[in-house]
Order: sequence, then C-alpha cells, then structure tokens
Amino acid sequence: MNPVAEPTAGRDALKARIAGLVGDDLMAVERVFATELASDDQAVSDVVDYVAHFRGKRLRPTLTLLAGHATGGITRDHHVIAAVVEMIHVATLVHDDVLDGATVRRHAETVHTRWDVPTSVLLGDHLFTHAFHLASSLGRADVCRQIGRATNRVCEGELIQHAEQGRIGLVEERYLQIIGRKTAELIAISCSLGATRNGDDTHAAAFAEYGRSLGIAFQIADDLLDFAGSEDEVGKTLGSDLGQAKLTLPVILALAEAGPQHRDRLVQGLRSGDRDERATVVAILEELGAIDATRARASSYAAQARAALGPIPPGPARDVLEAMTRFAVERSH
Amino acid sequence: MNPVAEPTAGRDALKARIAGLVGDDLMAVERVFATELASDDQAVSDVVDYVAHFRGKRLRPTLTLLAGHATGGITRDHHVIAAVVEMIHVATLVHDDVLDGATVRRHAETVHTRWDVPTSVLLGDHLFTHAFHLASSLGRADVCRQIGRATNRVCEGELIQHAEQGRIGLVEERYLQIIGRKTAELIAISCSLGATRNGDDTHAAAFAEYGRSLGIAFQIADDLLDFAGSEDEVGKTLGSDLGQAKLTLPVILALAEAGPQHRDRLVQGLRSGDRDERATVVAILEELGAIDATRARASSYAAQARAALGPIPPGPARDVLEAMTRFAVERSH
Repeated sequence: MNPVAEPTAGRDALKARIAGLVGDDLMAVERVFATELASDDQAVSDVVDYVAHFRGKRLRPTLTLLAGHATGGITRDHHVIAAVVEMIHVATLVHDDVLDGATVRRHAETVHTRWDVPTSVLLGDHLFTHAFHLASSLGRADVCRQIGRATNRVCEGELIQHAEQGRIGLVEERYLQIIGRKTAELIAISCSLGATRNGDDTHAAAFAEYGRSLGIAFQIADDLLDFAGSEDEVGKTLGSDLGQAKLTLPVILALAEAGPQHRDRLVQGLRSGDRDERATVVAILEELGAIDATRARASSYAAQARAALGPIPPGPARDVLEAMTRFAVERSH
Repeated sequence: MNPVAEPTAGRDALKARIAGLVGDDLMAVERVFATELASDDQAVSDVVDYVAHFRGKRLRPTLTLLAGHATGGITRDHHVIAAVVEMIHVATLVHDDVLDGATVRRHAETVHTRWDVPTSVLLGDHLFTHAFHLASSLGRADVCRQIGRATNRVCEGELIQHAEQGRIGLVEERYLQIIGRKTAELIAISCSLGATRNGDDTHAAAFAEYGRSLGIAFQIADDLLDFAGSEDEVGKTLGSDLGQAKLTLPVILALAEAGPQHRDRLVQGLRSGDRDERATVVAILEELGAIDATRARASSYAAQARAALGPIPPGPARDVLEAMTRFAVERSH
C-alpha cells in the first residue's frame, strides 16, 4: 500500500478496516451522544440537532475504541468516554468558528452564520457542560478529573493562540506549545482513557504519547491545508489563518528562512488580513521550501506516534492505529 | 429592622452577620478559586486575573457555606464546591456580556470591551472547564453529576431565552421556565450541595427548594433593576434588556394589562432596540402597575424560599438565610 501514490484508495481501505473493527461501537457512541443531548425543548433541539451537519471523521471516538480494542476489549465505558471526547471536540469547533469568523464547515453553514454569534456561544457551552455531565455518569471521578485537566489545557492553548495572533515573531517552539495544548491534549486523552480499565493503566502512558504525537502531526497537516488544500475538497473556508494573521508552521518556517524582500512580502500578506493574498503567500512558501519542511515536521511527529505503539500488544487494532499515523500527514480534508 | 425604610443600613448589618459566620471560609474559597485558575502562562493569567474586577456579591459561595454551617459545619469540601459554583457563575457572566453587548459590569469594562469577543468566549470556556476540573478533585462523582446537570439546565435556559428574544407574545410561564433554568438551578445546587455531607442529604431537598425560589426572586428583582435602577448604583449598563428586545417580567405583565395604545407604544419601544426608549417604557410600566406587580411576584418567591427553610434546624446560619430572602427583593445592585 502506497498512501502517496493512491491516497484515496488507501484511505477508503483504512476506513473499511476501522468500520470492520469498531463500526458497531461507533454507532453505539452516536446513540450515547444523541441521548445525552436530547432535549424536550424545541428551541434547544433545533440548534443541537444542527451540529450533525458538520461533524466529521469521528477521529477521537475512533481512537478511544481502537485503544480499548487493542488492550482487552471495548466496554460500555468506552462508548461513554468516546461520546464525551467527541462532544468536547464539537464544542471547540463551534466556538472556533466564531473566533475565526468561518462561514462554512464540512460544506455546511457554521452555526453563527445560520443563526448568530450568541447561539454559537451558548451551543458550545451546552456541549461542554453536557460532556462533563456525561463523563460523570461513569461514576469514576478520576476520569472526570483527567477530562477536566485535558479540557483546561485545550482552552489554555486557544487563549495563548489568540493572544499571539498577529505576532510576526512567533517561533516554532511557541507554536508547538499552542497546538500541543489546543489539539494534542484531547487526542492524547481519547487514546489513554480508552486504554484504561478497572484501574489498570499499564498502556495508558504509551497511548497518551501516541495520541499527543498523532495530534501534533494532525494539526500541522491541518494548518498546511489552509495553504495547500483546495476549498472544494476540504469543505471549509481556506486561507482563514492568513486572513486573521494567525501564524502557523508553514509561515513560521518561511519567515525563519526568508531574506528581507520575501519577509516584507510575507508580513504584508499577513498584515493585510486579506485572504486574496493567499496565492502570493503560497508561492513564497513553496519557493522557500516551507511547505515541504512543514510536511517533514508532520511526518516526524507521525513517526513518533508509531514508535509510541512499541509496547502495545500486536493485533488488528494496533495495525490500524499505526496506519492512521500515515494518513494523518497525507490528509486532504 | 425594617429593610424598606433603611435598606442600606439593613444590608450592611446583614453583610456583617454573614462575615461573622463565614467570612474566613469565604477567604478560603477565594484561595481555592485563585489556585485552580493560576497559570504559568502570562497570556492566560492576564485575562484570568481580570475577572476579579467584576466579581460581586459572592452570593452562591455564601449560600453553600451557610447551608454547610446550618447542617453540621463547614468542611474543606464546602470550600471547593463554593469555588466551583462561583466559577460557573463567572463563566456565564463573561459569556452573557458578549451576548448582551454590555460594555460595563460592576463599574469595570467587560472582557470583550477590554479585549475582544474571542477572548471573552475563550475565558468563559476556560472558567467552565476549570470549574468541572475542580469539582472532580473532590473524588465524588455524584457531585460532578449534579453540577453537570445544573449547568446543563443553565445553558438550556440561556438558549431558550435567546431563541425567544424579540418574541412579543412571551408569557409569564415561559419566562419562569427560562429564569428557573438560567438562574435558579445554579443557586439551588449551591444550597443543596452545601447541605449534603458523607452521603447524608436529609436537608438537601429543602435547601434546593430554598435556593430555587430565592434564585427566581433574585432574577425577577434583577430584571426589575434594568428598568427601575440607577446606572450609577447598579454599576452596569441598564436598559440593555430593552435594547435587545429581551422580554422580562415587567414588560410581560404590562403587555398582559395594556390596551391597544399602550401595547403599540410598548412594542414600538421594544422593537426599536433603542435604550433611549427606556424612560417612556418605564412610565407606561408604572402607569399599568407592572413595576409593583413584578415586585409582588418577587416577594412571593422570597416568601416561598423562607417557607422552604421550615425543616432546617434553628441557628444563626438559618436566620441569615431567612434575612437574605428579604434583601433579594429590595436589592438595588
């Protein structure tokens, strides 16, 4: 299998393997998710039901289930934890779209476009609190604690990212701090909680490390899409990082390499807040090798994720987890 | 003591009684609150530290402590629960200010005025997740569950309120549903969790009922302030409910009484979205007796709260809880 030559065919094959292993469990997770959010008030359910339109890959619940599969089997607790991490993820998406002023996600209008900013803010809050409520239904205070800690870090990462927005001097280390919190923490816990059962956390640390590295690879690849993707394929507004002067790794690496002329042109593109500058900026990024360098960073984190699987018992779930690290970098949506 | 004739003197005396009973514990709550939110990242702590500027009466933590005092004494768990409910309350304040476009709270600029909307959204999220993280530190999954459930209801109330905004046909029953969720649930749980210890919840239901009724009385009085208060005394933007066509009890009761002419004038005032219409609207509300009728509703809920204290053992904490029901209605800020 060569994911570079045949990414679509390879991705479909991977999806089929995931469906074969945890497809029924993913449907059980969906039921837990929907039951937790069900409301007898029409005003609430109208908005809540809408989020189904732009939920995507179910990456986090899939990881929870695969981690469970790889370490002794999937229980009812896995369904609940998987629904919790997905709900937290969706909450952050809804609020992120407000922050970014994005109008489209997964080919559907964002919530604040369809309704308004207050509805988005409240829906995100609603998803956050239901996630914690659902987590507490397990009766395991340690799980609530770990989910609380991870979510704290997600918010911290978002706050730092926002505070750094527009700062041209942002360096790679700070960027990694940001995405390590805002993206990797939740993916890490999606994995490690899936690998914990009856107080046995033998494999939890390895899974946390796998998830953290995969999450960073994933976020770098996502940031790359904002420059290198096509809007049709990705299904959301592109160039929005640029439009908001949000410095991501491609630009950080380019600025580190750029001579004065390129630098001025890049800064101008960032400062203009104009998405139309995208083509010019992309050309400079390519000329400076920043696209390739960014892809190499993502590959390196994906390799770290694979290495973290070392102590995990061999089997089909572990194989899929390993394959997922390759697709994290090759993704086009 | 006559709270109507001497509200300020009476309020100061009540404050002194509260300080005498739970003043040291309130300081312990502040320390738990600050420790939970402490961050080694300057970008985070700048924003988090700012919320101290517009925190107010500490009503919810005070209730938790008084409930503990009245039912066997205050423990470390009470400090944590009190900090949790206050943190959830502050989270909703920060998001409410975004929703309402309010520029001033407690004589200080609101977060989105001082920074921007994204910072407010993220700070609110940060406070929510830290509240749940802190709650889970008690190791009591039932407490997490109850806090999760109450917070779900708060968000539901806010979502319904927003969906109903501008609907002239809003009736008293629906208004009570909204404030019952968005305000009363958190106050109810602030009381009932304070009255629960070592699984003994003998007095929890009475305290929940006390808190729910007090919360409704309190919210009605708050909505009344938006018309009947002075901006200097209240320390926040007034007339904002009117400016947003948010129907509250004074207007709902007035519309129920109004003839066609008054009705048209009220609807015009609401639809204009103009805070300058406040004086005209207030004059109509007074003419129709809606201000007095609203105050009577608040008094009736305050009386229900007092009645709920029936089974609670007599003592200084119970006396203060009873006195608080009188001031909930007479409040001017």
